Formats: sequence, structure tokens, C-alpha cells
Amino acid sequence: MSLNIKPLADRVVVEAAAAETKTASGIYIPETAQEKPQKGTIVAVGPGKYADVSGALIPMSIQVGDSVLYGKYAGTEINVDGKEYLIMRESDIYAVL
Amino acid sequence: MSLNIKPLADRVVVEAAAAETKTASGIYIPETAQEKPQKGTIVAVGPGKYADVSGALIPMSIQVGDSVLYGKYAGTEINVDGKEYLIMRESDIYAVL
Amino acid sequence: MSLNIKPLADRVVVEAAAAETKTASGIYIPETAQEKPQKGTIVAVGPGKYADVSGALIPMSIQVGDSVLYGKYAGTEINVDGKEYLIMRESDIYAVL
Amino acid sequence: MSLNIKPLADRVVVEAAAAETKTASGIYIPETAQEKPQKGTIVAVGPGKYADVSGALIPMSIQVGDSVLYGKYAGTEINVDGKEYLIMRESDIYAVL
Amino acid sequence: MSLNIKPLADRVVVEAAAAETKTASGIYIPETAQEKPQKGTIVAVGPGKYADVSGALIPMSIQVGDSVLYGKYAGTEINVDGKEYLIMRESDIYAVL
Amino acid sequence: MSLNIKPLADRVVVEAAAAETKTASGIYIPETAQEKPQKGTIVAVGPGKYADVSGALIPMSIQVGDSVLYGKYAGTEINVDGKEYLIMRESDIYAVL
Amino acid sequence: MSLNIKPLADRVVVEAAAAETKTASGIYIPETAQEKPQKGTIVAVGPGKYADVSGALIPMSIQVGDSVLYGKYAGTEINVDGKEYLIMRESDIYAVL
Repeated sequence: MSLNIKPLADRVVVEAAAAETKTASGIYIPETAQEKPQKGTIVAVGPGKYADVSGALIPMSIQVGDSVLYGKYAGTEINVDGKEYLIMRESDIYAVL
Repeated sequence: MSLNIKPLADRVVVEAAAAETKTASGIYIPETAQEKPQKGTIVAVGPGKYADVSGALIPMSIQVGDSVLYGKYAGTEINVDGKEYLIMRESDIYAVL
Repeated sequence: MSLNIKPLADRVVVEAAAAETKTASGIYIPETAQEKPQKGTIVAVGPGKYADVSGALIPMSIQVGDSVLYGKYAGTEINVDGKEYLIMRESDIYAVL
Repeated sequence: MSLNIKPLADRVVVEAAAAETKTASGIYIPETAQEKPQKGTIVAVGPGKYADVSGALIPMSIQVGDSVLYGKYAGTEINVDGKEYLIMRESDIYAVL
Repeated sequence: MSLNIKPLADRVVVEAAAAETKTASGIYIPETAQEKPQKGTIVAVGPGKYADVSGALIPMSIQVGDSVLYGKYAGTEINVDGKEYLIMRESDIYAVL
Repeated sequence: MSLNIKPLADRVVVEAAAAETKTASGIYIPETAQEKPQKGTIVAVGPGKYADVSGALIPMSIQVGDSVLYGKYAGTEINVDGKEYLIMRESDIYAVL
Repeated sequence: MSLNIKPLADRVVVEAAAAETKTASGIYIPETAQEKPQKGTIVAVGPGKYADVSGALIPMSIQVGDSVLYGKYAGTEINVDGKEYLIMRESDIYAVL
């Protein structure tokens, strides 16, 4: 869970949860029908962003290890050490589960 | 009414009221004709958002348990513990009933 | 004139004046040709909104009972206790008559 | 010149000057060719608007009775006591003549 | 150069320089081919605008009589005492010549 | 290098470097294929702009004589004393070389 | 790594990493199929930008020599001393690796 990347400002790196591959009743879902996951785990957190006016640093509310819910199309896919992650702004995170 | 989710910033989680399934005169409404509900109950509330400039925390005016009225297309549907909820910003809430 | 609804922030609830159903010369106007009213009475007022920066509460200039003039397409229709109202922001109100 | 209407915030009510009905050389202009007037007289003035940040009231620079120049498409037509006026923001006024 | 008009806020009134009617080599340019002038003389200046936040008055840098350079499509044409002028915001002025 | 023009606010006047007329290998480039230059020399500098809020003057970082790099489509062409220059805001300048 | 260019404000100059020319399994990728790199090394850093309101200088979080991750379409290509670089704002940088 320690990732070799330091997000800037209010960005966080999320490891997306694996998409559900079968339905609640046990039927396998073909890959194209699997919903893109909206849940994930925070693996890296930036230092926070500076307030536009005062230059004061606004602290982050999310910590590494948090399980989060985020918007369906939030973030940008990045590849770190051969693995896919999402990097997004803290404001793209809806809630901590 | 205690939900296992902590909304971030000024977000709230709303449990939408069930859509009316019959008219005032008692006629059943087919599912596709049922109006999407605009009423709901607050089940989780974030800590409030930080003022853009001063970084001061602006408190929330809504509490868990409040019955609220919100915009027809407000919020994003989320699934918590197998049940559908809406997560939205407090500013999407029009009024407390 | 006491309505069971508490608007949030700088929102107000307006009871629209009935549309004119006949012209000045006494001719009845069919419903589709009636102009949507732009006059109404304030039936509920929010506490005011917080200034974006300082978080100070900006007070409302409108009171319950005020007869107001508002933009033709202002507000959202809501149904409270079986009756139609408009909920809008105070800035959608042009003037008090 | 005393009008039964109190504009909100930084709004003003303008009585538009009559459109020119003949050219400088005395030829009558048909109604559809008459230019929409850009001159008018202020008949009501709001109290001013609150600064977005500090909440301080910014005073109005225009007074009732001022003859003003305003943008061709500025304002919204309103009907007060059976007569047409324009209601607009002070920032829509270009100059005092 | 004393004009019977008081621009509001940070607006200025410009008397556009006459368009060039012949080329450098002395050939007359037909009216439709004449470039709209971008140079002019300031004939009236507003008091300055209020800062959005503090309400402090930001003074004007331009004075009546200044010869200025402005954007090709800047300003609105106005007619004062039978003569055409341009009214624009100080920020539409690029430079003083 | 002393130009008879005083840019307003945070504007600068740039004398664009001549476009390359032959390739590195000595082949002449026809005029339509010459890239619009992105390098130039500062020939006039405004006093700086006022901060939107406090009205404090933000000083300029660029001086007359600086060799600069700017966006391909930055600025407006102006003609001063029969010669073409570009006038642009300091924020259109990417770097000093 | 010392580049003859001084970026203005919060801009940085990035030397993009070479695109991968073969796949993990050793197959050569034709040039048109090579992904545009999103990794690079910082070769020059501006002094930081001024806060819009207070005019206070917000310091940079990135240093020359940092290996960074940036958006696929971030920045503008510039040519310094015959070599291609990207110039972008610090906010276009996602993370330091």
C-alpha cells in the first residue's frame, strides 16, 4: 500500500476495486457489461491545495487506506510500477465508506 | 437511519421517498409514468465545506433525519449495503419540510 | 400564509398570482394563451446565504407577505400540501411592489 | 415620477424614451423600422448590492430622475400600473446624460 | 472636447479617429474597404469601478484628451448631440499613444 | 527600442522575431510555409494590474529589452509609427530566454 | 540539466521521456502507435504565481530534476537550443515520481 508516487496539491491516487464479475444470483457478467467500479482504496495523498486568495494550505480529509466512493468518470488513469491507478482531485471523492 | 458512509465536504446522502404508485383518485400509475421523487430523508451529512478564500469551515444547515425537497435531477445514485441512495451537495437541497 | 416548508440559504417560496383569464376589454383568454404570471406573494423565506469568502451571513431583503415581481422563467415548481408553488433564489426577484 | 415599486439590490427601473417616429429630415418611420430607444429616465432605484465577499453594501451611483443611456437589449420589460418599464441592473447603464 | 455625458463606473467615451481614406501611396480606398479605426481620443471618463470585494474604488489610468489604441470590436456606438462615439470599459483600451 | 506607446495595466508590446526564411539545411521556405514566430523582444511594458480584490498593484516581471517566448496566437497586432508590433498581457508570455 | 530559459509565474519546462519503442514482450511499436509520453523531467521552474487577491507569491512545489507525471495533452511544445521541450503550468503536473 506504499506507492512510489507523490501526488501534487489536492490530488489522490486511488486503486479501483475490481469490477463485479458475477451478479448477486451468481451469473457471470461478460467483460463489456461489467460496470466500471466506483469504489476504491486510497494509496497516495497530496499535501493539500493552497487557498486561491490567502495562500493558506487547506488540509486533506482523506488518508491512505481509506475506502472511497468516487464519480463514475472521475480521474485519469496512470500506470505506476506496471499497475493501473486513478489520480483525481479530492473533490472528486464523494464519500469515505 | 445510521448509514455506513461518511460524505465529504458539503455532501449529503438522501434516501429518496418512494414514487407515488397511484393517483389521488386511486388509479395505479405504470412504472414508466411515475414521477421521479423530489422528496427524501437525509441519512448522512458531511462536515461542511471550506470557504474558498479563508479556509474557514462553513457549517451544514441540514441534519440526519431531515425531510428535504431537492431538484429533480440532483445528485448521483450510489449503492450502499445493497440499497440505492442519492449523494448530492447541500446546495442541491431546496428546502426542509 | 404560514407554509410548512423551510427554504435553505437565500431561497424563497412564491405563490404565483393567478394568470389573467380575460383581456382588459373582457375577452376570455384560452388557457394556452394565458401569460405565465410574473407576480406573486412570498410565503416562505430562507435564512440568507453565506458570503463565499468570509462565511458571513448575508441577510434577506424580502419578507413573508411581500408582493413581488420575478423573472418569467425563474424558480422551480414544487408541490407543498397539494398546492403548486415556486421556489427560487432571492436574486431571481426583481422588485417588491 | 414616483413609482409604486421597490427594485431589489442594484436594480433600477427605467422609463424608456419614446422612439423617434420621423427622421431628421421629417420623414415618418414605420413602426417596425423605429429603433428601439437606448435612452430613458430612471424612475426607481434599488438600495445597492452587497459585495460578494465582505457583505458590505455598494452604494448606487444613479438617482431617480437621471436621464440615462443603456444597452440596446438591456433589462426586462415589466408592467407597473398598466404602463411598460424596463428593470435592469445598474451595470447595464452606460452613462448619465 | 467637453462632452455632455458622464460615463458610469470604469467606462470611457472615445471619439474614433477618422479611417484612412487613401493608401500610403495615395490611392483612394472605397468606403467598404476602409479599416475600422482602432485609434481615438478620450472625451469622457467615468469615476472608476468598485473592487468586487472590498468596495474600494479603483482609480482610472486614462484622462480626457488621451490618444488611445483599442480593440477592433471594442465598445458600443452611442450618439451624443448628433455625433457618433464609442463607449467602452477602460480594460478595452490597450495603450496610450 | 524606445517606443512611443504606453501599454495599460499588465500589457506589454512585443517586436516579433523575424520568421525563419530557410531551413537548417539551407533550403528557402516560401512565405506561406514560414512558421509564425513565437519569439520576440519586449519594447514597452505597462505599469502592472490591480489585484481584483485589494486594489494593490501587482508588479510586472518583464522588462523592456527582454527576449521572450509567447503563445502562437497571443496578442493583437498593432501598428506604431508604421511598424507592426504585438500587444499582449504579461500572462501570455511563457518565459524569458 | 541547466536550461537557458526562465519560465514566468507558475510555469515549468519539462523534458518528456522518450516514448516506449517496444512492448514489454519485446515487439517493436511503429512510431504512429507509440503512446505520447506522460512522464518527464523538470528542467526549469518559474518563481511561482501571485495570489489573485492578496498579491502574495505562492511558492512552487516542484524542483529542477524532479521526475513528473503530467496530463496527456498538457503544455505547449517549445524549442530551446534546437531541442523540443514542453512548457506547462505547475497545476498540469499530477505527481512527482
